[in-house]
Amino acid sequence: MADQVSRFGAVDLDELPDDLRERIGAIAEKSGFVPNVFLALGHRPAELRAFADYHDALMERDSGLSKAERELVVVATSGANHCTYCVVAHGAILRIRAKDPHLADHVATNPWSAELTERQRAIVDLALALAVDPGVFSADDLEAARDAGLSEEEIWDVGAITALFAMSNRLAHLMALRPNDEFYLMGRVPRG
Amino acid sequence: MADQVSRFGAVDLDELPDDLRERIGAIAEKSGFVPNVFLALGHRPAELRAFADYHDALMERDSGLSKAERELVVVATSGANHCTYCVVAHGAILRIRAKDPHLADHVATNPWSAELTERQRAIVDLALALAVDPGVFSADDLEAARDAGLSEEEIWDVGAITALFAMSNRLAHLMALRPNDEFYLMGRVPRG
Amino acid sequence: MADQVSRFGAVDLDELPDDLRERIGAIAEKSGFVPNVFLALGHRPAELRAFADYHDALMERDSGLSKAERELVVVATSGANHCTYCVVAHGAILRIRAKDPHLADHVATNPWSAELTERQRAIVDLALALAVDPGVFSADDLEAARDAGLSEEEIWDVGAITALFAMSNRLAHLMALRPNDEFYLMGRVPRG
Amino acid sequence: MADQVSRFGAVDLDELPDDLRERIGAIAEKSGFVPNVFLALGHRPAELRAFADYHDALMERDSGLSKAERELVVVATSGANHCTYCVVAHGAILRIRAKDPHLADHVATNPWSAELTERQRAIVDLALALAVDPGVFSADDLEAARDAGLSEEEIWDVGAITALFAMSNRLAHLMALRPNDEFYLMGRVPRG
Amino acid sequence: MADQVSRFGAVDLDELPDDLRERIGAIAEKSGFVPNVFLALGHRPAELRAFADYHDALMERDSGLSKAERELVVVATSGANHCTYCVVAHGAILRIRAKDPHLADHVATNPWSAELTERQRAIVDLALALAVDPGVFSADDLEAARDAGLSEEEIWDVGAITALFAMSNRLAHLMALRPNDEFYLMGRVPRG
Amino acid sequence: MADQVSRFGAVDLDELPDDLRERIGAIAEKSGFVPNVFLALGHRPAELRAFADYHDALMERDSGLSKAERELVVVATSGANHCTYCVVAHGAILRIRAKDPHLADHVATNPWSAELTERQRAIVDLALALAVDPGVFSADDLEAARDAGLSEEEIWDVGAITALFAMSNRLAHLMALRPNDEFYLMGRVPRG
Repeated sequence: MADQVSRFGAVDLDELPDDLRERIGAIAEKSGFVPNVFLALGHRPAELRAFADYHDALMERDSGLSKAERELVVVATSGANHCTYCVVAHGAILRIRAKDPHLADHVATNPWSAELTERQRAIVDLALALAVDPGVFSADDLEAARDAGLSEEEIWDVGAITALFAMSNRLAHLMALRPNDEFYLMGRVPRG
Repeated sequence: MADQVSRFGAVDLDELPDDLRERIGAIAEKSGFVPNVFLALGHRPAELRAFADYHDALMERDSGLSKAERELVVVATSGANHCTYCVVAHGAILRIRAKDPHLADHVATNPWSAELTERQRAIVDLALALAVDPGVFSADDLEAARDAGLSEEEIWDVGAITALFAMSNRLAHLMALRPNDEFYLMGRVPRG
Repeated sequence: MADQVSRFGAVDLDELPDDLRERIGAIAEKSGFVPNVFLALGHRPAELRAFADYHDALMERDSGLSKAERELVVVATSGANHCTYCVVAHGAILRIRAKDPHLADHVATNPWSAELTERQRAIVDLALALAVDPGVFSADDLEAARDAGLSEEEIWDVGAITALFAMSNRLAHLMALRPNDEFYLMGRVPRG
Repeated sequence: MADQVSRFGAVDLDELPDDLRERIGAIAEKSGFVPNVFLALGHRPAELRAFADYHDALMERDSGLSKAERELVVVATSGANHCTYCVVAHGAILRIRAKDPHLADHVATNPWSAELTERQRAIVDLALALAVDPGVFSADDLEAARDAGLSEEEIWDVGAITALFAMSNRLAHLMALRPNDEFYLMGRVPRG
Repeated sequence: MADQVSRFGAVDLDELPDDLRERIGAIAEKSGFVPNVFLALGHRPAELRAFADYHDALMERDSGLSKAERELVVVATSGANHCTYCVVAHGAILRIRAKDPHLADHVATNPWSAELTERQRAIVDLALALAVDPGVFSADDLEAARDAGLSEEEIWDVGAITALFAMSNRLAHLMALRPNDEFYLMGRVPRG
Repeated sequence: MADQVSRFGAVDLDELPDDLRERIGAIAEKSGFVPNVFLALGHRPAELRAFADYHDALMERDSGLSKAERELVVVATSGANHCTYCVVAHGAILRIRAKDPHLADHVATNPWSAELTERQRAIVDLALALAVDPGVFSADDLEAARDAGLSEEEIWDVGAITALFAMSNRLAHLMALRPNDEFYLMGRVPRG
C-alpha cells in the first residue's frame, strides 16, 4: 500500500480533460514532475478544476501577504493538522520561497512555539486559531492580528488560506496521499 | 455589530461580475433571497467563483449520495464545528430535502448520538472522523464505512463534502457570517 | 427506537403520586402538553420530586437574574454539552422569554462566539467556564463576572443553574430523552 | 482565603430553617461534625433542601447498587472532575463503606486505570463515560454495562449518581468549598 | 493482579548489584521499607542507576527550590498525569517536608485551583505548563515565573523536575506500579 | 534569540568535567560536531551525566528492539510532543539507522497514520498510548503489543524509551533547544 499515490487511485496526466491537462502539464514542466495531488483528484475533474482555481486565487495573488508568508500559513496549519502530504510538499515550497532551509521543519513540527519574527508569529497565531478549534475563534483573534500590523486584506488572506488547507489537509488524509519523492530535498541543499 | 452580514463587509448583487451576478441571481430567484455567504465572499470574485464551483460540483452531483445525505454531512460537521451560519442555512435545506422538520436540530446539536438509520449513522461517523481530528483518520474509518455498505464513490462524496465544509465553516467563523432570517423557519412548518 | 421517550421508559401522568401528578398536571395545563422529562423521570418519584424542587428553586426565583437570562445559561451550557432535549426544550423557552426567535439557535450552536450584549456575554462565559472543564475554574472567572457588573447573587445563580443542568444534561443523555414535538416551533412564529 | 469554608460564606447551623436544622443536626450528631457543604449551601435553603433530598434519594436507596458502590461512583467522577471537596469527603465515606483504606486514593487519582473487580470496573467505566464527555455517550456504553451484568436499575443508579455529582462537583468548584479536617483521616486508621 | 508490585515483576534487594543494594538499602534503613519503585526497576540495573542518579541530582540539590517545593512540583504534575504511585509516595514526602497534612491531597486532586501562596502558585503553574501540553510551552510561561520572583536556577529546577517525573509517571503507568502501604498514612497523623 | 543554543545558555566542551568532556568528545569525533543537547545541559553536570547514562542504557542496548526501532519510538513520540530538537536530531539518526530517507518525516508529522509494517505500527501505537495521555494507559495497550508479537523485553524498551523522551522533549521545550545545522540533511542524500 505504501507505494500507491492515493487510496482512491490516480489518473495519468493524459487522462485529464484538455484544460486540466494543459494546466497541470505547465506545472509539471516548471517543477520537473506532476505533484501527486493533481493526479489523485483527477478522477473528479470538476472538483480538481475548482480546487486548482481556489488554490491559484489565493496562493498566486499578487497583493497582500508575500508568497513566502502564504506558504507559512499552509505549513503551520498542515503541521497542526498532521498532514504529511502538505507538510512535505509545501514545506519544500516554503524553503524555496523563504530562502531558508530550516524554517519549514520548525514550523511544521511546532507551529505554536517556532521562533519567528513578530509579523510571522501574528500570521501563524491567527492561522492556528482558525485551523484548530474554530468554534472558539473570536474578534479577539482578529484584534491581535490588527495590533501586529496586519491589514484587513492580509487578515483575509491568512483566514482564507487556512480555510482552504483545512479542506486540502482533509482530502489528503482521506486519500492517504503520498508526497512525491522530489519534494523531500527541494530547498534543503544550496544550489551550486 | 449584530446587524452586519460579515466582519469584512458584503457587496450588493449588482456589484458582482456578470457571471456571478447571473449565477447568484438565479439562486435568489429560486429561494426568494440571496444567501448571505455569496454577498460576503463577493469582495473576492475569484474566490467566490471557485467556492461556488466546488460547492456545485459536490452538492449538485447526481450520482452517489442523495441530496438529503449530502446535507446531512454538512449539518453534522457544521454542528461539530459550531458554525452557526452553516447549521442554520444547511439545517433549513436538510429539513426540506429530508422532509423531516426535526432531523437537522438533532444532528446539529449532537451529531455523535443523534438517532439515525444505520446508513445515515455510517455517513455521519465517517464525516465526523475526518472533520474533527483528521490527524488520527485511518483506514479503519474507511473500513467501517464500507462495512455499512457505502461504495467508494459515496465514501469520496462524504469525505470531500466534509473537507469542503471544513473550509466553509472556517470562512464563516472568520467573517462571523450572519444567517439570513429566512432560513430559520424554512422546512419547519408543513406547507398548506 | 426513535419513537420512544426514554431508554428507560416513561410513566403516564396518572401513574405518578398525587403531589407530582398535580404539579406536573398544572404545567401540562399551562403548556398544553407534558414535557417528556417529567414522564421519563417518573419511575423514580423521589428523584423527580427533588429535581422539580431544585429546578423551581433556581428557575422560578424572583430576584437576581431575569427569567430570560436563566434560560440563556441553560441553552448555552446545554449547547456546550450537546444535549438535544435541553437545547430544544429550553431553546423554546428562551425564544419566548427573550422575545427573540433567533437567539437560542445562535447560543446553542456556538455559545463561545454568539454575539451578545456585554452582560449576556459575561453570564455565558461564566457558565461555560464552570460547565465544560470545571477542574480549571478559578477566582479569575469570578473576577471577570464581577468586572462585568454581576452581583454575588447573580453569580451564584449562573453557577448554580450551570450545575443543575450539568446534572440535567447528563440525565437526558443517559435516557436519550426525546424532546416533545411541540417545542420545535414555540417562539419561532410571531403570534397573530 | 485558605481558611474560609466557601467563597460565598457559610451559615451557622442555627441560622437554618427548622427542618434543615434538624436534618443537618442529625447528620452532625452521627458524624461528630457538620460537613461544610451544608453550611455553605445554607444561604439558599430551598436549594439546600432539594440538594439534600436528591442526595438521599440516590445515596440512601436500599435496592440496586450497594452503598460502597454508590460512593465508588462519586469518588471516580469527582476525581475525573478534580473536585477536592468531594474527593476528600466521599473518599472518607468510601474507605468506610468499602472497608478499604486505599481504594479511594486509587480511584480518585486515576479512575481510568485503578485496579478493580470486573463489576466495579463496569460501574466506573459507565460513570466516566457520562461524566467526562457526555456528548458522545451512546447506547454502546449501556451495552457494555449490561454485558458486565448490571441491571437496568443499577445502570440508572450509576447514571443518576454521576449526574448528581456533575452538579455537586460544580457547586464545590464555584464555592472553592473547603473539606472539613475530619474527613482526611476517616477510614485510614484501623479502629482499635 | 492487585497484589503484585509491577506488571514486569520485582527483584529482591539482595538480587541487585552491590552499589545499588547498598544505596537502596540505605534508603530502606532510613524509611523503614524499600519503596517499590526501586525493586520494580531492578531488572534493569543500568536504568535504575541512572534513574536514582537523576533523581538525587534534582531532588537532593541544596540550592534553589526548597525540598518541600521540589515535592510540590512532583505531586502537582503527578496529579495532572493521574499517576497513583507518585501521588501516594511523593504525597507522603510532601506532607512531611511541608509539615502540612492536607496540602498534598489538594495539589494532587486539583493542581490548577488548589489554594497556594503566590510563589507556590507560580511554581505549580510553570510545572503544569510543561507537564501537560509541552508543545505550546512558550517564553510567556517563563516570563510569568520570573514575574513571580523565581530565579533562573529555580526555573530550571521546576522544569527539570517536571521533566524527570514526566518520565517517572510514565514508567509507573507502564508497570501499574503499586505504592507501598506505608506511604498512605505518612505525615497524616501528628507525631506524639 | 534564534541564534542561541538554549534559553539557559550553553557551555563549551572544555568547560565540562573530565569524564563528560571525554565522553561528549568521543561523540563529537564520531559525528563531526557536538550535538547541542550536551552543551545545553552542561551547566548541570550531574544531570547531564545521569541523562547520558539513561540514554545509553536504553538507546545502545544490544538485545530487544533494533537500533532503528528505538529511534522510531523517539521520532514518533517527539512528533506527538511537537519537540523540534528531538524530531530534527533523532529524525536524522532514524534516516540513517533505517536506511530510509522519508520514514522520519512521515512518522514525525503524523505518527498515528504513517504507513508502517505491522510490527512498527504496534511499536508506535504502544509508544503513543503512553506518551500522550498516560492516565488512560491500560493493560489493553500491553495486550495489543503482545498480540503483535512484541516480547516483554521489547515492550519494556518501547515504554522506557517513551518515558525517557517524555523527559527529553520537555527539557528541550524548556530550553527552546536549537538543533545543530548538521542534522537537517543527514541521511537525506544517498552517499556516493
